[in-house]
Amino acid sequence: MKKHNFSAGPSILPQEVFEKASQAVLDFDNTGLSLIEISHRSKEFVAVYDKAVALVKELLYVPETHEVLFLQGGASMQFLMTAINLMKNEGGKAAYVDTGAWSSKAIKEAKLFGEVEVVATSKDTNYNYIPKGYTIPSDADYVHITTNNTIFGTQFKEFPTTEVPLVADMSSDIFSKPVDVSKFGIIYAGAQKNLGPAGATLVIIQKDLLGNTGRTIPSMLDYQIHIKGESMFNTPPVFAIYVSMLNLEYMKAQGGLKAVEKHNEEKAAMLYNEIDNNPSFVNSVAKEDRSLMNVVFLLKDESKDAEFLAACAEAGISNVKGHRSVGGFRASIYNAMPKESVQALIDVMKKF
Amino acid sequence: MKKHNFSAGPSILPQEVFEKASQAVLDFDNTGLSLIEISHRSKEFVAVYDKAVALVKELLYVPETHEVLFLQGGASMQFLMTAINLMKNEGGKAAYVDTGAWSSKAIKEAKLFGEVEVVATSKDTNYNYIPKGYTIPSDADYVHITTNNTIFGTQFKEFPTTEVPLVADMSSDIFSKPVDVSKFGIIYAGAQKNLGPAGATLVIIQKDLLGNTGRTIPSMLDYQIHIKGESMFNTPPVFAIYVSMLNLEYMKAQGGLKAVEKHNEEKAAMLYNEIDNNPSFVNSVAKEDRSLMNVVFLLKDESKDAEFLAACAEAGISNVKGHRSVGGFRASIYNAMPKESVQALIDVMKKF
Ligand SMILES: Cc1ncc(COP(=O)(O)O)c(C=O)c1O
Ligand SMILES: Cc1ncc(COP(=O)(O)O)c(C=O)c1O
Ligand SMILES: [Mg+2]
Ligand SMILES: [Mg+2]
Ligand SMILES: [Mg+2]
Ligand SMILES: [Mg+2]
Repeated sequence: MKKHNFSAGPSILPQEVFEKASQAVLDFDNTGLSLIEISHRSKEFVAVYDKAVALVKELLYVPETHEVLFLQGGASMQFLMTAINLMKNEGGKAAYVDTGAWSSKAIKEAKLFGEVEVVATSKDTNYNYIPKGYTIPSDADYVHITTNNTIFGTQFKEFPTTEVPLVADMSSDIFSKPVDVSKFGIIYAGAQKNLGPAGATLVIIQKDLLGNTGRTIPSMLDYQIHIKGESMFNTPPVFAIYVSMLNLEYMKAQGGLKAVEKHNEEKAAMLYNEIDNNPSFVNSVAKEDRSLMNVVFLLKDESKDAEFLAACAEAGISNVKGHRSVGGFRASIYNAMPKESVQALIDVMKKF
Repeated sequence: MKKHNFSAGPSILPQEVFEKASQAVLDFDNTGLSLIEISHRSKEFVAVYDKAVALVKELLYVPETHEVLFLQGGASMQFLMTAINLMKNEGGKAAYVDTGAWSSKAIKEAKLFGEVEVVATSKDTNYNYIPKGYTIPSDADYVHITTNNTIFGTQFKEFPTTEVPLVADMSSDIFSKPVDVSKFGIIYAGAQKNLGPAGATLVIIQKDLLGNTGRTIPSMLDYQIHIKGESMFNTPPVFAIYVSMLNLEYMKAQGGLKAVEKHNEEKAAMLYNEIDNNPSFVNSVAKEDRSLMNVVFLLKDESKDAEFLAACAEAGISNVKGHRSVGGFRASIYNAMPKESVQALIDVMKKF
């Protein structure tokens, strides 16, 4: 039976990517060597790295002002790195928009490096909307947002306009649609949703923001050092970068991010439509803020939750249990999720 | 033609490991899903993680006092993490033995967190021996050594006896032989030599050393947080951990680290024997400190270097060029390197 994998991350990637990655682990590009036994400084791997960076630049129209890095440590390491690289050593201050658990964790790390002003939060209603109409202090070193809230199923559809550098955790919606990178000081994302396997972290940085804190930064946390080393200051996560490169090639072949976005909008519309029209289910996120990536929903009759999960399992549908802080269900429908799988879920909902 | 991969890292792993890893990327344990699309919190992956940790404990006889972690960031991140976790906030001081480029980099990061006393160095002779007979100050928070010097081809055969916690970068000789873990406060290693692919970092820590610095440590740099999260405080490098687990299983099936050590000693003896007996080649490392992992050697007639590399290439031998700071040649003969490949290199040397 076909499996429908709705995991929130690590998560589904295109079958073609799995096949090519599997082959490369045996014999990389007919070199007679496995991808994972070659030096990261070999011309073969440097070509992979350069291609991955070039594809990120091409798909997202990254301007010359910005650099692309593939690091280790996940988005969680970026909570710390964004703060240490941007917050002034003396009198540093940053503004954060709190839209859920991931924002809160980012705030916690930033507080170690300076003053944090939470300029808006949707905590009052368990994060079921994206705050609007707040003021970002003009003396902040940067403002931080989480563009898609993986747990709560909300997503920024418009980004705040501000004079201070905009820093965005795009872990769960990067490459799901076009984004104007020039509006951002830093974009970061753990690879393990729309980009690739766990173990790589994409960072896109406006270069001229760096080196201005008056702070001594440990080498591995210093973006300038990673830029200088072209992500090879130390050994990079070779396999995760290679698979990301394959997936970026796949997105390009699909027609780029406009095509990807259209597909994502259609899938999300199918599912939200079912939730709205099916009397047994409900989605409690503000309509204009609904995530196209993580669709959260509840059974009106909670006592049937286990029964619904069992019906899903029977149809080959896995990982639709909601996060414990929200309850109910969550269907993560990242780029690689086919309409056919979304339809399989809808079929179970209809019959339920 | 068979390839003989003498890369210093990332480097050769057993063929069986490549085959199983390749299969898991397509279909992990008949789950119908790829290893890289499943949640790190799934019972399937947690079982992989637990097995990897159990195998590390079994192969190295890790005592109950110590914890095993698989982190991201490479050994370079450990240069920073060891210091921030062990050096006292007020009046912190650490002792370092400087045996090469990697030690020097570790020293550089430690200096950001306290006083560093370099208690011994072999820099005077371009690091061609391991210093002995130095004194480790009893008021140091820890003493740091690099057990195998990947670039310079030296290796500690005995470890310093000291009252202060012993911290060791074992990146390039971990799992090459039995080690008495109880003697160490922290052992760390980037996976990409004897353990697995780039992207995972093994850390073995004596628990009661932690939490005593009086310092606020960012979450991602805090060993206590990673211990509490069983390496899943955030998304771990799933693929790299899985392949490491496969390779640990392979070591166990070989008979454990005593058997591995015997094989490594035999291989190294073959190669050093050729270097010593062949009038064209020379190894300038102090005999008692010669590395069993990275065998460095020079042609007496340097003008023939390119010719020798060409002869190697013709025999399918790759990556024997020495590091630029040493020149000549380096044959990395990690665990997975078969005698047959060492013999292939010796054959080229004999004919040269
Ligand atoms: C929006 C968001 N930010 C951060 C993270 C943490 O990422 P990592 O596990 O790579 O540190 C996640 C993980 O799911 C996420 O969804
Ligand atoms: C002994 C030693 N320490 C540290 C490192 C750095 O490791 P990483 O690239 O994982 O940071 C290396 C890399 O070769 C090494 O050989
Ligand atoms: Mg380049
Ligand atoms: Mg409804
Ligand atoms: Mg457990
Ligand atoms: Mg000789």
